[in-house]
Amino acid sequence: MSFETLEVEARESVLYVTLNRAQKRNSINAAMVGEFHRALDQAEANPQNRVVVLRGKNGYFCTGMDFNEVSGPEGETDAQGFMDLLKRFTTTPRVVVAVVDGQVMAGGVGVAAACDLVIASKTSRFSLSEALWGLLPAIIIPFIIRRVGAQTAYRMTLTTVPVTGEEAHARGLVDELADDPERQLNLLLRRLTKVTSKTVGRIKVYFRKMWIINEAMEAAAVNENLSMMEDETVKENIRNFTEHGKFPWDSP
Amino acid sequence: MSFETLEVEARESVLYVTLNRAQKRNSINAAMVGEFHRALDQAEANPQNRVVVLRGKNGYFCTGMDFNEVSGPEGETDAQGFMDLLKRFTTTPRVVVAVVDGQVMAGGVGVAAACDLVIASKTSRFSLSEALWGLLPAIIIPFIIRRVGAQTAYRMTLTTVPVTGEEAHARGLVDELADDPERQLNLLLRRLTKVTSKTVGRIKVYFRKMWIINEAMEAAAVNENLSMMEDETVKENIRNFTEHGKFPWDSP
Amino acid sequence: MSFETLEVEARESVLYVTLNRAQKRNSINAAMVGEFHRALDQAEANPQNRVVVLRGKNGYFCTGMDFNEVSGPEGETDAQGFMDLLKRFTTTPRVVVAVVDGQVMAGGVGVAAACDLVIASKTSRFSLSEALWGLLPAIIIPFIIRRVGAQTAYRMTLTTVPVTGEEAHARGLVDELADDPERQLNLLLRRLTKVTSKTVGRIKVYFRKMWIINEAMEAAAVNENLSMMEDETVKENIRNFTEHGKFPWDSP
Repeated sequence: MSFETLEVEARESVLYVTLNRAQKRNSINAAMVGEFHRALDQAEANPQNRVVVLRGKNGYFCTGMDFNEVSGPEGETDAQGFMDLLKRFTTTPRVVVAVVDGQVMAGGVGVAAACDLVIASKTSRFSLSEALWGLLPAIIIPFIIRRVGAQTAYRMTLTTVPVTGEEAHARGLVDELADDPERQLNLLLRRLTKVTSKTVGRIKVYFRKMWIINEAMEAAAVNENLSMMEDETVKENIRNFTEHGKFPWDSP
Repeated sequence: MSFETLEVEARESVLYVTLNRAQKRNSINAAMVGEFHRALDQAEANPQNRVVVLRGKNGYFCTGMDFNEVSGPEGETDAQGFMDLLKRFTTTPRVVVAVVDGQVMAGGVGVAAACDLVIASKTSRFSLSEALWGLLPAIIIPFIIRRVGAQTAYRMTLTTVPVTGEEAHARGLVDELADDPERQLNLLLRRLTKVTSKTVGRIKVYFRKMWIINEAMEAAAVNENLSMMEDETVKENIRNFTEHGKFPWDSP
Repeated sequence: MSFETLEVEARESVLYVTLNRAQKRNSINAAMVGEFHRALDQAEANPQNRVVVLRGKNGYFCTGMDFNEVSGPEGETDAQGFMDLLKRFTTTPRVVVAVVDGQVMAGGVGVAAACDLVIASKTSRFSLSEALWGLLPAIIIPFIIRRVGAQTAYRMTLTTVPVTGEEAHARGLVDELADDPERQLNLLLRRLTKVTSKTVGRIKVYFRKMWIINEAMEAAAVNENLSMMEDETVKENIRNFTEHGKFPWDSP
């Protein structure tokens, strides 16, 4: 199997997946969503595999949806597709670990939040910038609330102010704050590989019953996303950016 | 428009509202509830307005319901009226910011908790003293849980022990802890005024769908309030206080 | 009344209950569940009683179910019985305080989490080791989520890594971290004895309406427990331990 938007490497019981669109600040496009699924297929097909590690590159973990691709006619598919991907992280019988060292923006915060565990360096920064565009981080909010509660998710959405690695750790968006995330990952892997995949899968299914996210909420998230993408101001904001490189907060 | 229980001042895109019953430790009466609604009407009627700032005075942010007024025959209206006010803070298409510098007690904690953002000085103190009177902070608990989770809300209710600004920040009751809350407010306002009111309103509606507060829970809160105000011990505790200045924990 | 698995001592308005199976690392058996109920009966029968204090012994607060007893034919009763006990802690019209100084493991974390308040020393350690056995801490997860949110409960379950007293405090599993937990307890008791049992009972009933735990969730927890105890791998893991002292992570 060959990958273009990801680098994928299997080593013992771990599959290492590195986001590989550094020239696009590791933003997500439809191809990347598809390749994430293929990487998870590969992990699940290997009975020795226990853990999938997600990493960024060049100072970017992930910066969310690529606006050059979401504004097209396939917007609808993308919202559902992104939701399905995040949901798969939370249901696959593998432990999915995000190793964050750098910028995490918009949908990228959702990718991290949907992972089972997040290890981050202190210099990492997490921001939900959607509101500046007239958008909501609709798809990812359920996953962020699950980690940090309603208010911190709300505050990040409303203020768009970036959150430091330290604050993200204090609020629960990050599980382990580390000077050296890769070293911390290796410590964790020793422990994680002692739990069978069957047990991991069972834990994931069970926690879903013990928390408030359900199918109606997920459908509401997808609908909100589709509905806001139809908004004329939003469309114009995105068009101004993709066609003229102009941000909504620039003077007219 | 003239206000008696509040000081209201519009400046650019911000409406500044200062609680102005300092002689009554900024407790809430029916007149203040009505004036809060008028202040919000004023903000919503002004398309330039983006933010409503709530402030206290003389070391009191707000100390909850004025017992001299809640024990009257209009108790019923007050419970529903207070719930409606807090709900309006959480739904108005404006960002409502509480700037806290001093004591916050009982229902006053709910006023802060229902705000979109809370900036507080380190010397601020938050306490739910209701249980000492045989009362529950019924109306405000859903708003406190939304910020700090079930256990911290429960602990504050049960122990009645005041929480420092620092602990309130650690638990999420306060969003930003500041040596100089006014300076912090000004930093935040620069960011907040970049998000349109339409987007703010949309974010508020959306988060309501993503969390556990619903109309049944709000009705249960109002009912609990009404039912506990009928309790004979509670009535006597309040009467002893309003008529003789005697607290329930004083020796008989 | 005589107790074997607990030490029970009434002093003024407080009932002190010390887990007394130190030779079994204070693990829980059916006898202890029964004696907990009798201790609570005693507290509830005494109108002067306001508080029940739970303590461990010899460096163990509680280490969960005794595997030598849960593997028998009465497994079914035990799951429901343990759930009923934890539920009773959260509904009895008494304040139940856990004083933790030492190891807290598996179901023992649930005992602490179901208490109204947890005071712990900094050297205490909390761990959910169930996953190493192919098990889930099914019964206790709702109580842990109520304190720390979904993610921290999930992380502890999945990684099985022990959490220090300090981290447990930061995440809300511990309410008060103290160098001297007994001294902290005495400070707290002075405050707690000012709230009537009637009010305590009312607060407990009310908070149940304001949070997500309901009877369906409790039934799902008991069912999950029963179902996983039927798993052949789990049965073998437990049999290897009880018969040969062999842990699942030992080499074959």
